[in-house]
Amino acid sequence: MNAFDFLPQYAKMLHNLDLCLEKAIAHAKAKSFEVDTLVQARLAPDQYALDRQIQSACDSAKFSAAYLSGKQAPAHPDTEKTIAELRTRIKSCLAFLETVTAADVVGGEDRKVAPKWLGGKWVKGDQFLVQASLPNFYFHVTTAYSILRHNGVDVGKMDFMGSLPLRD
Amino acid sequence: MNAFDFLPQYAKMLHNLDLCLEKAIAHAKAKSFEVDTLVQARLAPDQYALDRQIQSACDSAKFSAAYLSGKQAPAHPDTEKTIAELRTRIKSCLAFLETVTAADVVGGEDRKVAPKWLGGKWVKGDQFLVQASLPNFYFHVTTAYSILRHNGVDVGKMDFMGSLPLRD
Repeated sequence: MNAFDFLPQYAKMLHNLDLCLEKAIAHAKAKSFEVDTLVQARLAPDQYALDRQIQSACDSAKFSAAYLSGKQAPAHPDTEKTIAELRTRIKSCLAFLETVTAADVVGGEDRKVAPKWLGGKWVKGDQFLVQASLPNFYFHVTTAYSILRHNGVDVGKMDFMGSLPLRD
Repeated sequence: MNAFDFLPQYAKMLHNLDLCLEKAIAHAKAKSFEVDTLVQARLAPDQYALDRQIQSACDSAKFSAAYLSGKQAPAHPDTEKTIAELRTRIKSCLAFLETVTAADVVGGEDRKVAPKWLGGKWVKGDQFLVQASLPNFYFHVTTAYSILRHNGVDVGKMDFMGSLPLRD
């Protein structure tokens, strides 16, 4: 098992999140409300709203792929104001993940990962993945999902999880 | 990187969750309400309340360690009714995780993982870990955290994440 094995999982989860947004659009249509009111929905007044949960999930996936591969992540200025724009952000992130190959990530576990928010310190690639990137990513994807569910969107845990590669 | 690297992370996250429950107790005391009212708090009427979120997070960690190591997980009959009992459940799960050694998990990535809910099918160990156990675990830990935060408990993302092994 190596760091690259997680990149398709980030992509799978972002794809599932996009399908949850599709369900949000259907829900808004059925209830005759403007779907973009959900963009500022949140679970606590001092917690990120849906927009920043999705932006953060995208960033977490994109920077994980970038840090572990040494590739440059595309810039996203966090200007999304609508569900449609947030879905475009997800698609852009998915497109970047597609460009990162297994060969790019060879040795990723041993890279020095030093994002700005670590203030000059660094974390070893595998520890970054296990202890920082994955929990942070799942935190934001789950919270985005919970905001939708809290607002009546018909999503269940299998929408969040997606399918498994089952064998007979 | 192998499957064993994730076991201390399950433990770390459960420990962080326990600290969030400690904050819930402090919050209830400060606001003079009975902390166990939070046990049935939930974010949507058809979603698990806090008790089952915590039970599920514990089970996810415990069964992951059991399936990847071949060890028998301790039974927990899901009878917790109080925050104190939920904290005991977490501690019991942490104690089991402590018993699983790196040697137990050697080859865990290639094990056939066939929990009952897969209805006779199975998933390869590494795919179980990456695509089932970790997302499921983080889903429940994050939702438990969100229920607390939604109810005014003073938890922030760093309580969820815990500290990182930073290097100079």
